[in-house]
Amino acid sequence: MAAAQRMVVIGGNAAGMSAASQARRLRRAGELEIVALERGGHTSYSTCGIPYWIGGDVTDPDDLIARTPRQHRERDIDLRLHTEVTALDPDGGRIRLRERGSGATGERWLGYDHLVIATGARPVRPDLPGIDAPGVHGVQSMDDGRALLADLERNEASRAADAPRRAVVVGAGYIGVEMAEALVRRGYRVTVLDRAEQPMTTLDPDMGRLVREAMRRMGIETVTGTTVTAVRTGEGGRARAVATEDAEYEADLVVLGLGVRPETGLAREAGLPLGESGGLLTDLAMRVRGREDIWAGGDCVEVPDLVSGRTRHVALGTHANKHGQVIGTNIGGGYATFPGVVGTAVSKVCDLEIARTGLLEGQARAAGLRFVTATVESTSRAGYYPGAAPMHVKMIAERRTGRLLGVQIVGREGAGKRVDVAAVALSAGMTVERMTALDLGYAPPFSPVWDPVLVAARKAAAEVRRAGAH
Amino acid sequence: MAAAQRMVVIGGNAAGMSAASQARRLRRAGELEIVALERGGHTSYSTCGIPYWIGGDVTDPDDLIARTPRQHRERDIDLRLHTEVTALDPDGGRIRLRERGSGATGERWLGYDHLVIATGARPVRPDLPGIDAPGVHGVQSMDDGRALLADLERNEASRAADAPRRAVVVGAGYIGVEMAEALVRRGYRVTVLDRAEQPMTTLDPDMGRLVREAMRRMGIETVTGTTVTAVRTGEGGRARAVATEDAEYEADLVVLGLGVRPETGLAREAGLPLGESGGLLTDLAMRVRGREDIWAGGDCVEVPDLVSGRTRHVALGTHANKHGQVIGTNIGGGYATFPGVVGTAVSKVCDLEIARTGLLEGQARAAGLRFVTATVESTSRAGYYPGAAPMHVKMIAERRTGRLLGVQIVGREGAGKRVDVAAVALSAGMTVERMTALDLGYAPPFSPVWDPVLVAARKAAAEVRRAGAH
Repeated sequence: MAAAQRMVVIGGNAAGMSAASQARRLRRAGELEIVALERGGHTSYSTCGIPYWIGGDVTDPDDLIARTPRQHRERDIDLRLHTEVTALDPDGGRIRLRERGSGATGERWLGYDHLVIATGARPVRPDLPGIDAPGVHGVQSMDDGRALLADLERNEASRAADAPRRAVVVGAGYIGVEMAEALVRRGYRVTVLDRAEQPMTTLDPDMGRLVREAMRRMGIETVTGTTVTAVRTGEGGRARAVATEDAEYEADLVVLGLGVRPETGLAREAGLPLGESGGLLTDLAMRVRGREDIWAGGDCVEVPDLVSGRTRHVALGTHANKHGQVIGTNIGGGYATFPGVVGTAVSKVCDLEIARTGLLEGQARAAGLRFVTATVESTSRAGYYPGAAPMHVKMIAERRTGRLLGVQIVGREGAGKRVDVAAVALSAGMTVERMTALDLGYAPPFSPVWDPVLVAARKAAAEVRRAGAH
Repeated sequence: MAAAQRMVVIGGNAAGMSAASQARRLRRAGELEIVALERGGHTSYSTCGIPYWIGGDVTDPDDLIARTPRQHRERDIDLRLHTEVTALDPDGGRIRLRERGSGATGERWLGYDHLVIATGARPVRPDLPGIDAPGVHGVQSMDDGRALLADLERNEASRAADAPRRAVVVGAGYIGVEMAEALVRRGYRVTVLDRAEQPMTTLDPDMGRLVREAMRRMGIETVTGTTVTAVRTGEGGRARAVATEDAEYEADLVVLGLGVRPETGLAREAGLPLGESGGLLTDLAMRVRGREDIWAGGDCVEVPDLVSGRTRHVALGTHANKHGQVIGTNIGGGYATFPGVVGTAVSKVCDLEIARTGLLEGQARAAGLRFVTATVESTSRAGYYPGAAPMHVKMIAERRTGRLLGVQIVGREGAGKRVDVAAVALSAGMTVERMTALDLGYAPPFSPVWDPVLVAARKAAAEVRRAGAH
């Protein structure tokens, strides 16, 4: 029997450990040695779950951990925590690593037959005065979550119960609005600051406006069109306010929710191919382009956008898991591909559900597409059924062909996951006309007799016909 | 200008009045005269809403009425209530009608340029001793609902508040289980009787078993594999029990929930083409086959089943509305088609959600298909998120091709409408392998990182590969 091959995984979260687990499912330890290197102390945890831990929906952070280091090791994965990779040598088929605390002299090379780069993403942290002050928090890792929670508890313990608690969230994207909810649930008065015209730049401004209005009714103030210039510090160098060009917002705590960038510094130094966002470029089997033995997945890659025909960076645990599954299958001797994304995302702020898939107007324009739009207001259930809540659906369709290009939804309970209908229709390249005849589940507790997505499709189809006359 | 054409609609509910309204939208009164004939006294109401009216979720029955006779008349639709059609004369381009109470001599002929048959369905009512006794109720029309509600109130008023209230529901399909919920909500002890092996024969027996178990936990007893032989009557000839081959079940009230059959007696007498279920057969524009000027839609037609390649009878308001829209568009001079159904249905019993789309195992077999199945248990939200509830997903895929054939779901809140993902995938002819890569909305409050439908698709895809080896 041939000597075992070695698979080396950089990054112990969703993509990396899914790849390791799947490869192990297909290949026993005698056939494939698997070494997984993780800079931090945790594996396979839900980054997306951190806001709910902070908000108190999840009380035990261990619940966020899908698989512990011990569980991975029991499956014959040689997992090494607190181990940093300092260089890649693709031509030499090796990487350089350092166990934390061992100093540069403790660095050594490790060879591989298959390398999996799953280094994830790092939060955007603008270079501003005071940005590193105590009291300014990111929410990307378990350690970030723990630090934020400790700071919240310290702040809450040090003040009278009725003293106002104030927090500023910088960035009104998914992480920003989810953190706003978490802080509201902890009794904070929250202000969210963003440069854009409306919150949720993952939506068009007309839909973002609905989010802003709903957030205001929840007591969350959103200040848009503003640029943060500094974090002001006070006693003990601790953050006490966030300054913008126009104003200053007092804060016991500051949370950064500005999104993330691919963590690909090592890949760049090693000359691996990167896309516009800095994410690694791979083929459909998740092999780094031009490399036989290097794979990449999760938040550090760019993937095909099946609607725009470009590649893009989408940091989402659900994709990372799929990438890992594909990589592990291929390394394990099977065959799998990740065809790409259509850009689906769903989120909530208190009882407001926000979802999108496909392209926004601006993205469609940038992709060279001409389109029509249709926005409708309907309800999540039959109008007469208790709990029927209003929901807005915006649909974008290509002119001439009538092909669906994107859907955005803002509503209440039952609204968000309806975006999946559009996500499948996008994958299938359906026209909005064809969508009008979709056989979606109907019963009064679940939907009006015309599902809101069908109502939007009917209106969009009418717009396509109207535009076709010109 | 040419004289106005006349469109005659038989049936004043969803399909008929949607057709009338849509035709009116496209053609003014001077161009098209629209006469709508309704046997009863109501128009455009939600039959599917009746159980929720009985159960008390809907308190005002007017809420079930989407558009009143007056609203239709205001839109220049000549609506005639309590008017029965007694014969069709397709070759003569006319129908015979009678205004109720006017006697046979009051019958007269009415000519048409376009006839729309939207006569709906009638509830199955087995020919058994006592079936017509007071206290035995159907739930198909507003009048049925009103009679049942009056009887319930009379029964409840005539007894001590703590006296046991007992009801028997005959038939454990959608209507039966929804009525069981309604009666439980009114404080009745409910027994549901059905001939089949498990309740919900719209599901495979293995999934039906999950429904039975959940219903038992709600205090609803389901007796299956039993045939009702008679309704026993007592004082005043009123129903007092339901007898089966083996036992007798006492009941203050009996509800029939045995499903419906197309109401096509007139069409049959007139020699119009009917399918195996007795439903009218139409082309894709909803024109009765072989007839230029007769259209049909709603619960009285058979439609193409896009998965099995047959036609089938599916009585659902959502289809009836689509049919009406298509018919009205075509009569109004536009162009529209109804391509068919994939067989989606969703329902609930208390907090249990039940859904299906595509083919059951038996239906797939009858269609000549060979297939594999995969059943998984997952949760509606991330496992650590509050309210995450177990849900079962069963998936059926064709051997060799791996094409999705059907999905069944039994779960709690958030489970039912997930069937829509499969409904769209069926419409698009997707394989389960392709479904594994679908970009469905993910965030912890909405889904585990692998959506339950994707988990089922992964397992089904593995089964397809395994079966491919043989």
